[in-house]
Amino acid sequence: MTKENAKPDGHLDLVLTRTTSVPARILWRAWTEPEHIKKWFCPRPWRTTACELDLRPGGKFYFVMEGPAGERHENVGCFLEVVPERKLTWTSALGPGFRPTVDPFLSFTACITFEDTAEGTRYTAVALHRNDADRQRHAEMGFEQGWGTAFDQLVEIAGTIK
Amino acid sequence: MTKENAKPDGHLDLVLTRTTSVPARILWRAWTEPEHIKKWFCPRPWRTTACELDLRPGGKFYFVMEGPAGERHENVGCFLEVVPERKLTWTSALGPGFRPTVDPFLSFTACITFEDTAEGTRYTAVALHRNDADRQRHAEMGFEQGWGTAFDQLVEIAGTIK
Repeated sequence: MTKENAKPDGHLDLVLTRTTSVPARILWRAWTEPEHIKKWFCPRPWRTTACELDLRPGGKFYFVMEGPAGERHENVGCFLEVVPERKLTWTSALGPGFRPTVDPFLSFTACITFEDTAEGTRYTAVALHRNDADRQRHAEMGFEQGWGTAFDQLVEIAGTIK
Repeated sequence: MTKENAKPDGHLDLVLTRTTSVPARILWRAWTEPEHIKKWFCPRPWRTTACELDLRPGGKFYFVMEGPAGERHENVGCFLEVVPERKLTWTSALGPGFRPTVDPFLSFTACITFEDTAEGTRYTAVALHRNDADRQRHAEMGFEQGWGTAFDQLVEIAGTIK
């Protein structure tokens, strides 16, 4: 690609970057296999109690997050870009088959990239929003801490993946 | 692909189907080259006065439609699937780089396919909506007649493409 999608904009987007010794191959499996996702995707004590992925552009990405007080958030979106071990992009603005979603809980597109560097695998998660209000709302929902804790959990369970 | 995206649903979608002797190769060029699009994309007396395409998933699709009484509608969306001479999918729910759009005029995903058949090229345009209300609104805006007239204009200008 000569032009990159999902370029972060400081006024609209949120970015989390981490570097880990876990290889991209393992991070990718942790990210794309439901039995693994369920173990790390929600910062504890929240849990991911259901997860379905159809890993192709237009394919369904469904997950249910449950909180300690009985809260339950059902999310459905679709994948936009699937580049094994390199890049995974999905959006909450479209559902399976690219159909626009009805009132998503929060409208955003997430782009996760995995890059090999001298220090290890650089993991970058970018959340793209339609406006500053949605960016702020996502930040206030705890994007930085939530996605950061989830990443720590991901690294923790990576050791269980062969 | 084992599963098809953009499958029409009678309660949510609108479909236009036509068969023409114009080869898919020419229809594709008429559909993807701005100088041609400007000549057929809006049913006359409306005109397409500007058009920009970046033909790749996440790439911009921008067009301006102007009406006889000075109306002006600016539209920006992005492409989702680009299969030359076969399939073109774009949405108004996401803009360039897959960023969710702010209040699109109408939220829909369009999937245009070109199939070779014994009778000629079968042209199918499907508009996917998030709910029945949007489908009805799009129908009342004149989807069937508008897209049908645009298709006739497309066939008309196809003769000028080598």
